[in-house]
Amino acid sequence: MSLEDVENIKKRIENFKKTLMELTEAPGSQETAEHKVREMSAEVVDSNPYSRLMALQRMGIVKNYEDIRKYTVVVVGVGGVGSVTAEMLTRCGIGKLVLFDYDKVELANMNRLFYQPSQAGLSKVTAASMTLTKINPDVKIETYNTNITLSTQFEEFLNVLKTGGINGDRVDLVLSCVDNYEARMTINAACNELGLKWFESGVSENAVCGHIQYIVPGESACFACAPPLVVASDIDEKTLKKDGVCAASLPTTMGVVAGLLVQNSLKKLLGFGTVSWYLGYNALSDFFPSMMIKPNPNCSDNFCLKQQSEFKNRVKEEPEYTNVDLPEDIVTHENNEWGISLAEDEPTASNNTTELVELLKTENVNNSTKSDEEYLSLNDGIEFAYPSADQTAPNEESLVKETELNVDDLRKQLSLL
Amino acid sequence: MSLEDVENIKKRIENFKKTLMELTEAPGSQETAEHKVREMSAEVVDSNPYSRLMALQRMGIVKNYEDIRKYTVVVVGVGGVGSVTAEMLTRCGIGKLVLFDYDKVELANMNRLFYQPSQAGLSKVTAASMTLTKINPDVKIETYNTNITLSTQFEEFLNVLKTGGINGDRVDLVLSCVDNYEARMTINAACNELGLKWFESGVSENAVCGHIQYIVPGESACFACAPPLVVASDIDEKTLKKDGVCAASLPTTMGVVAGLLVQNSLKKLLGFGTVSWYLGYNALSDFFPSMMIKPNPNCSDNFCLKQQSEFKNRVKEEPEYTNVDLPEDIVTHENNEWGISLAEDEPTASNNTTELVELLKTENVNNSTKSDEEYLSLNDGIEFAYPSADQTAPNEESLVKETELNVDDLRKQLSLL
Repeated sequence: MSLEDVENIKKRIENFKKTLMELTEAPGSQETAEHKVREMSAEVVDSNPYSRLMALQRMGIVKNYEDIRKYTVVVVGVGGVGSVTAEMLTRCGIGKLVLFDYDKVELANMNRLFYQPSQAGLSKVTAASMTLTKINPDVKIETYNTNITLSTQFEEFLNVLKTGGINGDRVDLVLSCVDNYEARMTINAACNELGLKWFESGVSENAVCGHIQYIVPGESACFACAPPLVVASDIDEKTLKKDGVCAASLPTTMGVVAGLLVQNSLKKLLGFGTVSWYLGYNALSDFFPSMMIKPNPNCSDNFCLKQQSEFKNRVKEEPEYTNVDLPEDIVTHENNEWGISLAEDEPTASNNTTELVELLKTENVNNSTKSDEEYLSLNDGIEFAYPSADQTAPNEESLVKETELNVDDLRKQLSLL
Repeated sequence: MSLEDVENIKKRIENFKKTLMELTEAPGSQETAEHKVREMSAEVVDSNPYSRLMALQRMGIVKNYEDIRKYTVVVVGVGGVGSVTAEMLTRCGIGKLVLFDYDKVELANMNRLFYQPSQAGLSKVTAASMTLTKINPDVKIETYNTNITLSTQFEEFLNVLKTGGINGDRVDLVLSCVDNYEARMTINAACNELGLKWFESGVSENAVCGHIQYIVPGESACFACAPPLVVASDIDEKTLKKDGVCAASLPTTMGVVAGLLVQNSLKKLLGFGTVSWYLGYNALSDFFPSMMIKPNPNCSDNFCLKQQSEFKNRVKEEPEYTNVDLPEDIVTHENNEWGISLAEDEPTASNNTTELVELLKTENVNNSTKSDEEYLSLNDGIEFAYPSADQTAPNEESLVKETELNVDDLRKQLSLL
């Protein structure tokens, strides 16, 4: 047998294995579909995938765990944070999961959890959907291989939020796991328009800081109210790659941020514990700043202003109305190391941000002659992330088709070996 | 064709698929082995799995990221926390990973990250090794399907710690991700004997609290110095299942704890940031208590006493010697909500624990008539986890053999269809 023959056989075996993997990994394939259930059982047996979740009821943590099956969560961006977020929700047995992303899996993603080298080249939503369906076929998964920041896609995105829930209702929660300013602003605009609650999340480009932020339109600051201030810096990977620069990332930081994000989502959906408005994570010092920021009455987003006015009316009519445990004024958490507090009731246009900047400066950086931007970039997880919104939207990528194969196809491929 | 024939064919297809999966998932299989590298490249291309990690150097976080390839980490227990821990270390490109567990994958594990339903029935170490090798073939993975608490296995465990490192050196770090008191005490005994640094970790049985603890023999309290106090409660799943009771668990809490554990391990190994001595996580309030506990001069473990005396001599000889940033007295972290501080330099046998208990009571539980144990179980993530050590060690389970198949076997199986 010549060396060429050996190489050919190797290639055929390789192709064959890939085909087989696609078959075994196809959504709804038999080895997993068998545990599809109608009711979540609390029975304590090794074969029950829900026994440890239903135990949350007996432990007194959650009133009715099975409520989770009623909820639809949208995850925008299924990269380092979003993919783990989607996996956690899937394993928790969420009713429906809607995934948005336009990127492909690359080997350069392998330093974060979830994707496998064999999935390189697949679109992220397809790869994620395949893995998640194998993990828990009870979860309804819907994928959109689209870039929501393209003007042609915004209406579709809005429509999914409005009607993508179980029984055609609006979805229950949107989780932003994107890596650029433009996509965050798009999600912000859609959620303000619909009055939809969402969580922002992000990880800094040096990989050691992250945050989550809960945004209730009209009640808390939206992303346009104080955008450059309260998000850890992030950089669009496309932009970075163009310049030959590359942001650092770690599976640890991304895993922690995804865990905090889904934990707070579960607290919100199932009604236990206290949902954090803003929770930061500084990995270098294991510091977790926490705070709440009121909406900006001069926000540039008109839908935000409308939501603010509606919220004020709601509070007037029902004085006891608060969403989670919102006090009258800005909340500063007990373990708020910086003592940040925004005191004014009716701040002017940029007061919120200026005031916070001042506090960060005086609290944290002494004996220094640095500029404002430098001050902030030195602070734990909070800095000017987006000095400008001049990033261009990448082109939409084509959807990778799922392979459908049967045993006959398989036999044909084998016979070629 | 009769119904029985159809059933038979279904079963054969099922077996066939499983075989194929094992083949494609076998360690070192071709689709992943191709990215095996000699050097970690910092090149910013989509095909480089290390570009985002090497970027930690350019960002000024880590001095020499590639040092990670020199280190061997032992993970004891590859369940909800340990499996994610192993995956994170693998994706970070750790030199060598040694896994200990004697349990099998069950569907009841599917509410936590990592394992897949198709792996049910495999031993955890085999299933983990298969997946991890697929993710990153550059990592040397060694597995032990043994119960380290069995007296017959302890010598082997000790020997692995002594010689299991790269080039036959001692290992660099041990991570405890076990779910019972006995296994923690076994790891503690071995690490005290060898003077080996390790991290303890745990998650409470109600799934909403967790912790990690860094133990440097002689320098910080060992697990025998103050065991029932500083660990969140855990329950041996075997014991629970016998009684028909079942601990709750969540992928979120386990993911966060694994993330904090590996992050602090990376900080220790690669020398960046500050390693936390004890870091708790209360998911209900997003509270992260932090503290340091000195060793107990009356510890029941003789090797601990020996390490304490050696540490004292070391400090006398090199007064600047501190391991991470250890102060003279007990450290209480700035955001220590409870104001816990253990003031005495030379506490008596049980002083450490009693004093802490008192503080917890006065700080947190007012107007109550509950017993000490009840007080503690009400506190954020810290409680008496192990009132007694009367759990019996489960029997060692047999090792599930890895399936080795070639194309001929495959063809034979296909011909039966």
